[in-house]
Amino acid sequence: MNKNICITLQYDGGRYDGWQKQGNTEETIQGRLEAMLSKLFEQDVEVQGSGRTDAGVHAVGQVANFHVNTVYGPGKIVEQMNRYLPKDIVVTDARIVDARFHARLNAKRKTYRYRIGTGFARPVFGRQYLWYYPAELSVEAMRQAAAFLLGEHDFTSFCGNRHRKKSNVRTIESITIEETVPVVGDGEFPELVISVTGNGFLQNMVRIIVGTLVEIGEGKRPPEQMGAILAARDREQAGATAPAHGLTLWSVEY
Amino acid sequence: MNKNICITLQYDGGRYDGWQKQGNTEETIQGRLEAMLSKLFEQDVEVQGSGRTDAGVHAVGQVANFHVNTVYGPGKIVEQMNRYLPKDIVVTDARIVDARFHARLNAKRKTYRYRIGTGFARPVFGRQYLWYYPAELSVEAMRQAAAFLLGEHDFTSFCGNRHRKKSNVRTIESITIEETVPVVGDGEFPELVISVTGNGFLQNMVRIIVGTLVEIGEGKRPPEQMGAILAARDREQAGATAPAHGLTLWSVEY
Repeated sequence: MNKNICITLQYDGGRYDGWQKQGNTEETIQGRLEAMLSKLFEQDVEVQGSGRTDAGVHAVGQVANFHVNTVYGPGKIVEQMNRYLPKDIVVTDARIVDARFHARLNAKRKTYRYRIGTGFARPVFGRQYLWYYPAELSVEAMRQAAAFLLGEHDFTSFCGNRHRKKSNVRTIESITIEETVPVVGDGEFPELVISVTGNGFLQNMVRIIVGTLVEIGEGKRPPEQMGAILAARDREQAGATAPAHGLTLWSVEY
Repeated sequence: MNKNICITLQYDGGRYDGWQKQGNTEETIQGRLEAMLSKLFEQDVEVQGSGRTDAGVHAVGQVANFHVNTVYGPGKIVEQMNRYLPKDIVVTDARIVDARFHARLNAKRKTYRYRIGTGFARPVFGRQYLWYYPAELSVEAMRQAAAFLLGEHDFTSFCGNRHRKKSNVRTIESITIEETVPVVGDGEFPELVISVTGNGFLQNMVRIIVGTLVEIGEGKRPPEQMGAILAARDREQAGATAPAHGLTLWSVEY
């Protein structure tokens, strides 16, 4: 019986070349999943993700779907997939969806989280999932700057792909910047968590937004400059691209 | 000025051959610290830990001390050490202590924590710090068995070093077994956290206790057998040694 299976998955992107398969390499998440599923179900299986994640970026709630002929139910599929997936990828849920469901085309909203370790001491535990950058950052200035990005805009200034021909118009629904202080034993490891929710994201978009916000937080640029950067539609005007390993695709809504 | 410096440190033991230096290798925590401190202070520095941790075991609150001639205060020492230490070791605190203070001889009490992932899905985040063993474990049986170990006993049955000549008598003050369900995104990753506090621990002692408790939790042995295992003073009577990567030295009290 042909089923359209929608899965939620988590991965540590540290050792992968990102989501999207490239040629025959299994060193992408999509490539790994397709190779495993094709073997498991003894048929060619193509996996459609909600979107690509860059090399080194993690996911806590990536969503993907695939069509497969199988008698297995969702529980059995989760079990079998986790049995054969490497330790840095796990399926947390599977459900049978309408044949027309498409993980990318039907995605309404995505949330990314970027963690910046700002404390005196580098965190050891979880260090793979945040950017340690112990500068004094003005959260107030960063929030002021972030407000310029809300709504529908052409985000060309925040797009890492300079050869892109399609529309760079996207809508950012919210950007929050929270200060938290995770405690591990006697150690305190303050961090900023920047959450960005929008209807879609360009290549490196969240990382360039974060890199620019950090420069503003450090006082290297005034918060008001964010409006001019956005209006310029020029990647050169924005700040550096923040490192991949601080970024996690948090959730996808349909 | 000669100072006796007491530090608290955290490490991810994953890629180390344990705490204790062996010959010239820097692949031990102690070896790494001594090499770095000797270079930093341009003098031979010996580091005394509260105790050894096995290869692969982590620490959230290891304590160590060293004597050094320096004008640096504790804050500067923490800063300099963290500047030169690798990313999987961090110093969270330093203080100047009495010249006679000795991190091992003066330790009164240590707490270790062992995490067992028991859920349907393997956790991806933090997987390096727990043993994923998705069996149905009777926590009640494990608690009953653990009670036999409380107090002062000869723990030869739980000692991994068969050639040991010194006393194997130690006191366990408490063993707690807690069920928690960390949530990551939409995923739930239930685990058991076994905390053991005592005045000292033999080689592999906590790991053999955990391995034995797990066999009891699975119903392979009755809880009452723990008393006989302890009384036998025979390593063969106890269960398997649980994997190193689930264990963390949590704290040391003086």
